[in-house]
Amino acid sequence: MPNINAYVELSPEEKEAKKDYIDRHSPFITVAPNAKVGEKLAVNVRLGKNYTHPDDTDHYINEIKLFDRETLLATATLLSGINGGHGNKGQAEVTFFIVPQKNLKLVALSYCTKHGLWQSDPAEVAVS
Amino acid sequence: MPNINAYVELSPEEKEAKKDYIDRHSPFITVAPNAKVGEKLAVNVRLGKNYTHPDDTDHYINEIKLFDRETLLATATLLSGINGGHGNKGQAEVTFFIVPQKNLKLVALSYCTKHGLWQSDPAEVAVS
Amino acid sequence: MPNINAYVELSPEEKEAKKDYIDRHSPFITVAPNAKVGEKLAVNVRLGKNYTHPDDTDHYINEIKLFDRETLLATATLLSGINGGHGNKGQAEVTFFIVPQKNLKLVALSYCTKHGLWQSDPAEVAVS
Amino acid sequence: MPNINAYVELSPEEKEAKKDYIDRHSPFITVAPNAKVGEKLAVNVRLGKNYTHPDDTDHYINEIKLFDRETLLATATLLSGINGGHGNKGQAEVTFFIVPQKNLKLVALSYCTKHGLWQSDPAEVAVS
Repeated sequence: MPNINAYVELSPEEKEAKKDYIDRHSPFITVAPNAKVGEKLAVNVRLGKNYTHPDDTDHYINEIKLFDRETLLATATLLSGINGGHGNKGQAEVTFFIVPQKNLKLVALSYCTKHGLWQSDPAEVAVS
Repeated sequence: MPNINAYVELSPEEKEAKKDYIDRHSPFITVAPNAKVGEKLAVNVRLGKNYTHPDDTDHYINEIKLFDRETLLATATLLSGINGGHGNKGQAEVTFFIVPQKNLKLVALSYCTKHGLWQSDPAEVAVS
Repeated sequence: MPNINAYVELSPEEKEAKKDYIDRHSPFITVAPNAKVGEKLAVNVRLGKNYTHPDDTDHYINEIKLFDRETLLATATLLSGINGGHGNKGQAEVTFFIVPQKNLKLVALSYCTKHGLWQSDPAEVAVS
Repeated sequence: MPNINAYVELSPEEKEAKKDYIDRHSPFITVAPNAKVGEKLAVNVRLGKNYTHPDDTDHYINEIKLFDRETLLATATLLSGINGGHGNKGQAEVTFFIVPQKNLKLVALSYCTKHGLWQSDPAEVAVS
């Protein structure tokens, strides 16, 4: 299996380059902690909390998947150029809209064409 | 080539069923008319202006693509269930985020598993 | 709507460059003309009959879709590099396997990151 | 992270139902053990060695990805119906064509809409 990487907090002593590398590849989910059954819910996924990623033709964020536990809800497939194109940097981002019927445990999984698969922390949503 | 359908305004005399059919399948782009070079721009695509579409396992919205003229920017691939699942109706929706470098002429192209391909009206964005 | 291009036969007098351009972007379906209900059928789609297409990071074949009339059966999403990578040329190709229940009228639709959407001629399969 | 399941050999004493479950979800790669630099290589991925999987609208094989180590080469996204449709069973299958430049270590990753992600054993190809 390809490795699946994930965000980790680094101590202040750890190298800036490593922080940047991990941060810019990690997907972060932003979603309300509570939702109503049958009502539309926005789920934002953005790669990078404090850092930006290249959008070069040979190095870009190609895919962002959203799972609820083991169940795939949606995939955003991005082409190089969407974040400014070759020579530019940015944070790949998409907002999915879902209509939940029960509690959610969301996980995002993204793919960088040079540095492989990265998963988010899970985001739980209480649905009632 | 598969047919590509599109939204048309119907007169009040035309049948409600036809209005519903066309409206619920048509993608509508919502985006600011002006943007700045290199700044992130939200592009929302939603299917249906006034009507909702089934989210049945054998009849759902499976794909939403965003083009700038002839250039594909991104694809959202949705699975049945994201809008409430079998027996429910909703409006498939996604927000893409793009960083433009020049004027945009955006078009969305969506796919319903029973009623094929549908395109939006173009949405122009002046980028400076 | 983005333009959808298609293969056309050119006369001997027409420019070689135009022939190459059209040929290398056009999807060609290869499939048996007859198939049996419920038996697996290979459907090959290849871009280019006599010419090859770049596999550069900024110019490559990104997607091959297979439709039966208006119905999407499958999509192959390719990344740059699968045909030798930057500086190389080749013919993007995939074989889908389908189990038909009735006569088919297959059409392929492909996407080049520089030259947009291209459709194949339809390929009919009698299924009995 | 969603679980990623994989094929395991079961002893004769283990329950048939479990064998069937594991076999029908597991992707198997068939590829020549040797290939030439710059020459096209067929890589077949099929789910199930001895068993078949439903192609029901609420339970089908939706995605087959092919990686070379950490690098995504291609994704086949399948719709329900491609293997006979509701009430039928089959083995989801695709042949990708790649032009290798160096030794390959291929892994397939597939997704069942009810039973999640499954990976293949790696398949190594010596390229010279």
